[in-house]
Amino acid sequence: MKKLINRPEDAVAEALMGVAAAHADRVRVHIGPNYIVRADAPVRGKVAIVSGGGSGHEPMHGGFVGMGMLDAACPGEVFTSPTPDQMLAASQAVDGGAGVLHIVKNYTGDVMNFEMAAELAQDEGMEVEQVVIDDDVAVKDSLYTAGRRGVGATVLAEKICGAAAELRRPLAEVAGLCRKVNANARSMGVALTSCTVPMAGRPTFALGDDEIELGVGIHGEPGRERRKLASAHDIVEALATAVVDDLPFGPGDKVLAFVNGMGGTPLLELYVVYGELHELLEGRGISITRNLIGSYITSLDMAGCSITLLRLDDELTALWDAPVSTTGLRWGV
Amino acid sequence: MKKLINRPEDAVAEALMGVAAAHADRVRVHIGPNYIVRADAPVRGKVAIVSGGGSGHEPMHGGFVGMGMLDAACPGEVFTSPTPDQMLAASQAVDGGAGVLHIVKNYTGDVMNFEMAAELAQDEGMEVEQVVIDDDVAVKDSLYTAGRRGVGATVLAEKICGAAAELRRPLAEVAGLCRKVNANARSMGVALTSCTVPMAGRPTFALGDDEIELGVGIHGEPGRERRKLASAHDIVEALATAVVDDLPFGPGDKVLAFVNGMGGTPLLELYVVYGELHELLEGRGISITRNLIGSYITSLDMAGCSITLLRLDDELTALWDAPVSTTGLRWGV
Repeated sequence: MKKLINRPEDAVAEALMGVAAAHADRVRVHIGPNYIVRADAPVRGKVAIVSGGGSGHEPMHGGFVGMGMLDAACPGEVFTSPTPDQMLAASQAVDGGAGVLHIVKNYTGDVMNFEMAAELAQDEGMEVEQVVIDDDVAVKDSLYTAGRRGVGATVLAEKICGAAAELRRPLAEVAGLCRKVNANARSMGVALTSCTVPMAGRPTFALGDDEIELGVGIHGEPGRERRKLASAHDIVEALATAVVDDLPFGPGDKVLAFVNGMGGTPLLELYVVYGELHELLEGRGISITRNLIGSYITSLDMAGCSITLLRLDDELTALWDAPVSTTGLRWGV
Repeated sequence: MKKLINRPEDAVAEALMGVAAAHADRVRVHIGPNYIVRADAPVRGKVAIVSGGGSGHEPMHGGFVGMGMLDAACPGEVFTSPTPDQMLAASQAVDGGAGVLHIVKNYTGDVMNFEMAAELAQDEGMEVEQVVIDDDVAVKDSLYTAGRRGVGATVLAEKICGAAAELRRPLAEVAGLCRKVNANARSMGVALTSCTVPMAGRPTFALGDDEIELGVGIHGEPGRERRKLASAHDIVEALATAVVDDLPFGPGDKVLAFVNGMGGTPLLELYVVYGELHELLEGRGISITRNLIGSYITSLDMAGCSITLLRLDDELTALWDAPVSTTGLRWGV
């Protein structure tokens, strides 16, 4: 295993110390329990948005803390759910009196721990809503999941709900928007290589030199099928067809197309993928009116990509375009 | 070789088509000769800034085209200099009548071709200045270079000169700033793995499972020494000490610290590196007053990182903070 770390068991905490040293102007990092909040938290009268999950998916979620997106992120150990006490402490730190929305990726540990955290917070009189994101069309009932996994739509939901919260929309509305994003988004990913969890020290799964895992999960969970390595054209066709046919997206739809790198894939390749996706969607009468291309929800050093499509209307488009100021996404400020 | 591409010989052109499809609101992509210009080029009365080099280092340079940074980028084939006709055509497309600055990384092919392009442009009556960036302290007279290689300081120079050009500073001043950035910046990188050039189809160099290349070049050129894999602490100490001692940076200096991923290294590790760098510089009395952390000048899928330090004064700090709107760097707008 080759990684720029010290002791594997210290990697997450040391990365958090790096975030604290780098971005003290934007975020506060709390160690024990671990969470990241925006520097101006709590923002009075604003719905607070909290997310979290295992580490190893950076910039998600810590890189999305800031004006226009998350109020707090709870990083667990690598590929391990954060604990209820992290989520509770983070929620308390950002609650501005207008309630807290928990955006939860659909993995069994995350869902269970966020539910416990919500109960504890509600016991303290906090108003909490939770939305579970489950946009991955690849498989149902995966290694760590009942139902579908939550992947790329989480980034989009965090951005859009964050914008709505800045506009002082009430909790029920912000939660409703989160459900709307989830209902209108679908994703699927592919791995060209495995990732290596620092504490494990060896690749999570074995993949032949000429094989790819189609529909892979962001922790290296098995996908739909193992195939022979194929061209970008054929891989995009497989991913995008599965995504488009699932919702389904159809002629006349306007979409946000999100081409996401898994961590070990260079930008050059993501643009080749985007070009293929653009052509395929055009052929099916679907217009890309917004896009996001880069590595935003990653799987450590895994090579591969995922495609997420979100059907846009005027409301979602305006919220997507609204200013955001985080280390991972930034515009308008 | 596992890559999200179609035919290796088409990868650069197809990635450019992806850029054109994705970012038509910000840039225009010209194919044959290949170059990317900002959508509003030429900007009348503004010094135009043109850079370029081999592809495979994305987002550099194409991702830095836009308000506050580059007017044009010329992408060559992977790790291959663009040609003088690309540079000439790009310069013509962005010349707003106030002259053109070519920012050139110090590689023999790039320097030669940019010199030819400048001569051709001057023959047409264009005012052209060129600045060669050579900030890599690792080695002199490398595989493709006479003198030192140009690496991370290029990103910083493009941002700072871009801001000065937006303020309508004259060509000589913008070129002077570029020289000032180069004079005050030093870099060094490390590879944990090789990269694989699509057309070659196999790793550029061989590196044992327990080895790293200290001082590696961005095309996989040999560095200072091959070492056993070490902790992030020890690797940062080796890189940062070489960088600090070279200028030298000293107590009381304010610096911009740039921790750059080589393409295959996840953000989690870059933050571990940043934490180590922060501690080391603090111990030497050097204050980090600005930072940049992410994969901005890459080497395809190489795992590794580089550290660049730039000594800041008030002028450079203000220009760094000025608004920028590119797909690779964006703030203030």
